Amino acid sequence: MAKHAGSVFSVDVTGLDRDAGQPAYARISERIRAAILSGALAPNARLPSGRTLARDLGVARNTVDWALDQLVADGYIVRRRGAGSFVAAQLPERDSPPLQPERSRILVPDTAPRRISRRAEALRAYPGHYEPASSVPFTPSLPPTDLFPRDVWNRLLQREASRPGDDYWHYGASNGLPALRRAIAAHASAMRAVRCSPEQVIVVTSTQQAVELAAKALADPGDRAWCELPGYPPVRHGLRSAGLEVVDVPVDDDGLDVAAGLAAAPDARLAYVTPSHQYPLGVELSLPRRRALLDWAHERDAYVLEDDYDGDYRYEGRPIASLQGMDERGRAIYIGSFNKILFPGLRIAYAIVPEPLIDAFVDAKHIADGHTALLMQGVLAAFIDEGHLGQHLRKTRAAYDRRRSAFLEEVHALAPWLHFGPARAGMHVAARFADAASGLCDRTVAAACGEKGVVVHPLSKYGRTARGGLVFGFAENNRVRQGVAAIRRILAHA
Amino acid sequence: MAKHAGSVFSVDVTGLDRDAGQPAYARISERIRAAILSGALAPNARLPSGRTLARDLGVARNTVDWALDQLVADGYIVRRRGAGSFVAAQLPERDSPPLQPERSRILVPDTAPRRISRRAEALRAYPGHYEPASSVPFTPSLPPTDLFPRDVWNRLLQREASRPGDDYWHYGASNGLPALRRAIAAHASAMRAVRCSPEQVIVVTSTQQAVELAAKALADPGDRAWCELPGYPPVRHGLRSAGLEVVDVPVDDDGLDVAAGLAAAPDARLAYVTPSHQYPLGVELSLPRRRALLDWAHERDAYVLEDDYDGDYRYEGRPIASLQGMDERGRAIYIGSFNKILFPGLRIAYAIVPEPLIDAFVDAKHIADGHTALLMQGVLAAFIDEGHLGQHLRKTRAAYDRRRSAFLEEVHALAPWLHFGPARAGMHVAARFADAASGLCDRTVAAACGEKGVVVHPLSKYGRTARGGLVFGFAENNRVRQGVAAIRRILAHA
Repeated sequence: MAKHAGSVFSVDVTGLDRDAGQPAYARISERIRAAILSGALAPNARLPSGRTLARDLGVARNTVDWALDQLVADGYIVRRRGAGSFVAAQLPERDSPPLQPERSRILVPDTAPRRISRRAEALRAYPGHYEPASSVPFTPSLPPTDLFPRDVWNRLLQREASRPGDDYWHYGASNGLPALRRAIAAHASAMRAVRCSPEQVIVVTSTQQAVELAAKALADPGDRAWCELPGYPPVRHGLRSAGLEVVDVPVDDDGLDVAAGLAAAPDARLAYVTPSHQYPLGVELSLPRRRALLDWAHERDAYVLEDDYDGDYRYEGRPIASLQGMDERGRAIYIGSFNKILFPGLRIAYAIVPEPLIDAFVDAKHIADGHTALLMQGVLAAFIDEGHLGQHLRKTRAAYDRRRSAFLEEVHALAPWLHFGPARAGMHVAARFADAASGLCDRTVAAACGEKGVVVHPLSKYGRTARGGLVFGFAENNRVRQGVAAIRRILAHA
Repeated sequence: MAKHAGSVFSVDVTGLDRDAGQPAYARISERIRAAILSGALAPNARLPSGRTLARDLGVARNTVDWALDQLVADGYIVRRRGAGSFVAAQLPERDSPPLQPERSRILVPDTAPRRISRRAEALRAYPGHYEPASSVPFTPSLPPTDLFPRDVWNRLLQREASRPGDDYWHYGASNGLPALRRAIAAHASAMRAVRCSPEQVIVVTSTQQAVELAAKALADPGDRAWCELPGYPPVRHGLRSAGLEVVDVPVDDDGLDVAAGLAAAPDARLAYVTPSHQYPLGVELSLPRRRALLDWAHERDAYVLEDDYDGDYRYEGRPIASLQGMDERGRAIYIGSFNKILFPGLRIAYAIVPEPLIDAFVDAKHIADGHTALLMQGVLAAFIDEGHLGQHLRKTRAAYDRRRSAFLEEVHALAPWLHFGPARAGMHVAARFADAASGLCDRTVAAACGEKGVVVHPLSKYGRTARGGLVFGFAENNRVRQGVAAIRRILAHA
């Protein structure tokens, strides 16, 4: 064989006894059969036409036809007149003798454990799946889908997709679509008192990505970062995955204990905080601590990552301004996301960064994934510019507030076992075990709730705390009463 | 002021002389004026209604009205009867005295350089922007937009967006939509001889992201990775950004010099290769070297990252099978992307990983950005399942082949200065300077071409090589003759 003459099949059939003179059609049918048996070609999948296969594989049409004939004869594919060839709905192999070992290689799952990186091992504590997306009561941080105006969104989607020109189809700028950056700057500026120009906005896919870009732009492996304890696990894991050492800083009624952070790691490069509504405890970072945090960052050449994940939802008192808005020395990086306030499948969020850091963030985004998908950026820009974001926020703010009231009324029944923290904002509330329940393991209680179809998170999921507790979402309004009753029964018998 | 009573404006106007008793309406109008002057609120942008502003800001309606009145009087906003308030198209500030220093703080660009990370400094050599997306001749690796069936795509988009249920709107699985993973497995299996089940497919946004996930799942900071020299810069930078040390391994006519890699860094954790069509030289990795690479990976517990970025385009000879397809020991990670074969704004690519590594990759993806945006995954799955991907590949393969022939015919005129490498596949071709041009600096030549409206990449952009050269894209067919003539004049006078 000439050096570069390898084709898909000459390489692919190394285990299929080619040297014994197996003809080309047999090798092709074996290949397709293996793809069917492995599940790569699903039952009822349509195969390319014989002519197409012949061209793509560089063999004669006859060869392909013979291969397909054999597969039809063996029951792996069926031909439908005028419609082509399809993988059979029922495969014959189930009733057949097992494949010869060298042929079934692809089917033998290779599950012997492998060495993965230390950072990947650490991640195994937080496996990569999401909560079920169903309407189970109390799943924290799961935005309801019933309030989003899909009709409006889809109308804009259709309009933008049909727009002439290549703006949404070609490569885009790594920092994001200009129209979206303008819309975000206007929104964050008007609603969250963020000070910025559109140039400071970097469009990303998620809060996690914003944190990762900050970690890479500002810190090298081994550098340290403060994280709230208890706090948001994906950020902690993301910082570690970027090579940083996470320093746990406790949270009390005034938010992150800045003095504790100063004592533990004054030389940290980053501090991650949720100042408007601490995740998960729901407290606000006090004004003196905001000042202390920004002073520390200024003095030690560090940066504050402000995750304002639900700053748009506040039901009592005046809005809490962003920490970024009081930063006069370019030390705050503001992170906002549309994945929770619109819908999680969207994957659009943003970072607002001090001007001297713009280039470093854009470079990091460029290397991470080029840029965020374009068409949805355009749709979102239109959605904001045309007033739909504001309208949606007003509608959901009122609805979540009503659901919050109903929830708080119901959970009076849990008062003997749970002390509820502040519920003035956002979409969730944390409750610590009261003395009567102080000996309980929150993971056990949460698991028991799960068995009754109620999802609450154990407080210890967010990091070790002196006393356990449960975290509830209240933005959905399904079966609140039944859910609370189920939890009450579990706590009463625990 | 009570501790938590801070509102958007009480925090925001710290520099606006609040203590001197400036009234609330004045602080609000100042804030809006600053947003307008900074560009955060663009000319002609619509402001929220007075009632809305009052509610969102927690002030009386009168206060907001007074603030808006002042802005109208000053010429910053205009009111249109029945339509609301809008930022003025022409701002008065241009003819006014400058703002007082403390008021214009937001306008003073803070551009003093900051300390960024060492990895971010290294990235500055490869700043985060893309080539202009216009139809300039010869831009390498820029897929043309004229052949993509937008009408088909948009029809599927509309259909999928209107599908009832929450599949595209809620959180999704971090490894991708099941329908898309099945479609990708079938495509890669049938067309690229990849051996896989749908479970091994991880949907990502881009080749860069796939490489980053591999780096994090398999390597820790300080671990080493082989990269082709010359090679694809974003991958090299991405690996460094993930904390890895990049080991340059030279490329010759048989592709990556595996023996040189073995000599330089036998203990590397990863080897990144483009075996079907080396980027940028266009050579194929020979069969003995493929075997040697997989043997090394097996023996040293390392992994081969196979970037098959344009494996679907081959114009001469039989298709080159994927390296993954000949890997029997679970050492190859196959990376494919739809961003070049469909359209770059899409941002969907995939990794196909050995079974024992699935969890580590899914965890890494979960932490990187949760999951890839959902609706477009559904549209792409339908596009593949319904045969449009195959049809598009056949159409573009034929078109690029015609464009390639026309291009190769024209560049005969450059033979005195440039020796063209293989052009049997893909969308680009690399040419090295001939003896007559051996003293030229390829960056100078490329810059001169740029001035004439012709984009070619200097070969040295992909890493130091003994002799410079130019890299051409041939998939666009705009102004080929004029472009070649311009380059000829530049080379003849250099």
